[in-house]
Amino acid sequence: MKNYPYLLLDKTRCTENIERMVLKAKKHNLELRPHFKTHQSKEIGEWYKGFGVNACTVSSFQMAKYFASAGWNDITVAFPVSNFDIDIINELGKSIDINIVTSSYKNICSFNEGDLQSKIGIFIELDCGHNRSGVNIDNTREIALIVNLIEQNKHLVFKGFITHAGYTYRAKSAKEVEIIHRKALKSLSQVKAFWKESYPDITISYGDTPSCSISDDFWGIDELRPGNFVFYDLTQTSIGSCSLDNIAVALICPILDIYPERGEAIIRGGAIHLSKDSLLLPDGSKSFGSVCNFSGETCGNPIDGMYLKSISQEHGVITCKKSEDFNLKVGQLIAILPVHSCLTLDSMGELFLSDGSKISTMRERIIKT
Amino acid sequence: MKNYPYLLLDKTRCTENIERMVLKAKKHNLELRPHFKTHQSKEIGEWYKGFGVNACTVSSFQMAKYFASAGWNDITVAFPVSNFDIDIINELGKSIDINIVTSSYKNICSFNEGDLQSKIGIFIELDCGHNRSGVNIDNTREIALIVNLIEQNKHLVFKGFITHAGYTYRAKSAKEVEIIHRKALKSLSQVKAFWKESYPDITISYGDTPSCSISDDFWGIDELRPGNFVFYDLTQTSIGSCSLDNIAVALICPILDIYPERGEAIIRGGAIHLSKDSLLLPDGSKSFGSVCNFSGETCGNPIDGMYLKSISQEHGVITCKKSEDFNLKVGQLIAILPVHSCLTLDSMGELFLSDGSKISTMRERIIKT
Repeated sequence: MKNYPYLLLDKTRCTENIERMVLKAKKHNLELRPHFKTHQSKEIGEWYKGFGVNACTVSSFQMAKYFASAGWNDITVAFPVSNFDIDIINELGKSIDINIVTSSYKNICSFNEGDLQSKIGIFIELDCGHNRSGVNIDNTREIALIVNLIEQNKHLVFKGFITHAGYTYRAKSAKEVEIIHRKALKSLSQVKAFWKESYPDITISYGDTPSCSISDDFWGIDELRPGNFVFYDLTQTSIGSCSLDNIAVALICPILDIYPERGEAIIRGGAIHLSKDSLLLPDGSKSFGSVCNFSGETCGNPIDGMYLKSISQEHGVITCKKSEDFNLKVGQLIAILPVHSCLTLDSMGELFLSDGSKISTMRERIIKT
Repeated sequence: MKNYPYLLLDKTRCTENIERMVLKAKKHNLELRPHFKTHQSKEIGEWYKGFGVNACTVSSFQMAKYFASAGWNDITVAFPVSNFDIDIINELGKSIDINIVTSSYKNICSFNEGDLQSKIGIFIELDCGHNRSGVNIDNTREIALIVNLIEQNKHLVFKGFITHAGYTYRAKSAKEVEIIHRKALKSLSQVKAFWKESYPDITISYGDTPSCSISDDFWGIDELRPGNFVFYDLTQTSIGSCSLDNIAVALICPILDIYPERGEAIIRGGAIHLSKDSLLLPDGSKSFGSVCNFSGETCGNPIDGMYLKSISQEHGVITCKKSEDFNLKVGQLIAILPVHSCLTLDSMGELFLSDGSKISTMRERIIKT
């Protein structure tokens, strides 16, 4: 049974988002290995299969196991590997092609490759400027040390280099994304040129939703790994990765009370539903989501000047900048476009289509009573 | 099976936090009706029963149902009531004492009280300055209109007034909390004086963790409703509600990589585990959690100058201000004290004691594979 709020998924938009990225990868002759951490759902995985996608990326071995059980047999776990993962890697390695990722010489040294029981693909993560995890892309010496270690291990197969230019998320415009993207491409092509002599089959795996959505230049890249584009969100519209019409998820919330004198309404819909990412609006105020009318089945466009100004655990406060436009009613259902759809999906753990049918995810909650 | 990261609960600290609040309520001759949205766990509910607590507060009817099935038969749902809740109110009303909350005249008018099937207690929510939901405490006319409506309904029993002085969460010091608290007390006692002539048995229900932890003056109040104190967190230490030694939960995370040259380490532990509340440190930087050593069973004190500077979906970046003190190792487990324990618990959905035993909550995830 649906409780309020619930997360509505527009299947048409979602499959259009998938198809658009599939066609783009095809056009540029790239492998598409979409990141499934955004949707975490076997059923949405099937929609990808319908477009011929047969490899995916995940962010944990638990997620790899979930998708392996749905028939995915070529999975990259794009997260620094750890000794804590040995057992599950061995379990998965018996039945599917699994690629792991090492993020530094220290990282791979801490990992007892001797405990591996089958052939496992391994990527070296490069840091092109994101400054999170990965070997600095200019650190040729450290890269060579890691390649050597991989070479010496009979269970590890060197697959290539992986990078996440995630600092595109901090870009303020499509142009800024292009600049970051081209800089990353240039560095990656140098790395590839250097290593392809010894390893002609290596893959350069790249991807973040802004670059993959905005750019039309992927020179030197072999594989794209975006994730968020399957749903998109307000962060992506603000960057320029998509239009509002591409956002495929919305939180459907009841309006519990209205305070027209201060142009505000209270909804059931808070941090445990949307998570707490926010966007800065042009006037400097924070938005936790845009407010749209909801027909009972589909979600309209955002109402001008209206947004979620604050959220606590389960309450949300909608504000209406133009108080003369305030026309919300107690008891009405309203749709909130999320700032960050990956976190909203993870918080909610399940989605519903407009016909009321449920889409499960691996992060579903047990409804205990 | 425990995966990493997991949420560790220090049972001793947790039960001490409960006992301290129980004794405080007793000392001031107040009912304690703790808010259970922080822990959402039947098992932790039992610990409260051990101290003689037999009434609780929840934030949804689903949560009321969960605790009712564990024997709680006096529950206040401290959230503006909605027409969407009628069925579950009737279901609960058959077997337990349930109190609902109305937040305005418009709110109660939108609610078809005619559909109620048994006697239900009702509180009027007052807004003492939090500016979220509730009738402005000075709006005597609106309060009177609501009381009249309640009077006319044979199923509703007027129980009194409820308020959440949640703006104490924005206080910067214990002194600031006291000022907010005393102002709220003064207004509430005026409301009580006015209404107790007609309704001698009404309850003034009040509570937020900062006021209830810091103050020793509850003049005019009948019932306390704090929730967060069961775990506390860094927000509460920064306000002055508790000491670091009172924080009862910590996220246990593996260190996946270290970058000593930039004084940083990467952990598995991000927004889907901690949620995304942050604290401003004195130097203006943001902290998403404090870093403590972890013995394998218990969590030490925060390491000076070290904190979680950023989190993405599943990665966390620890920074060490004094790079000469950087001594983290890849593969080590580390404990993160959360900024906001309610949201961290809700994100994780389960807890583990130091002996490895699991504490379930109503928000547990289904582990699908």
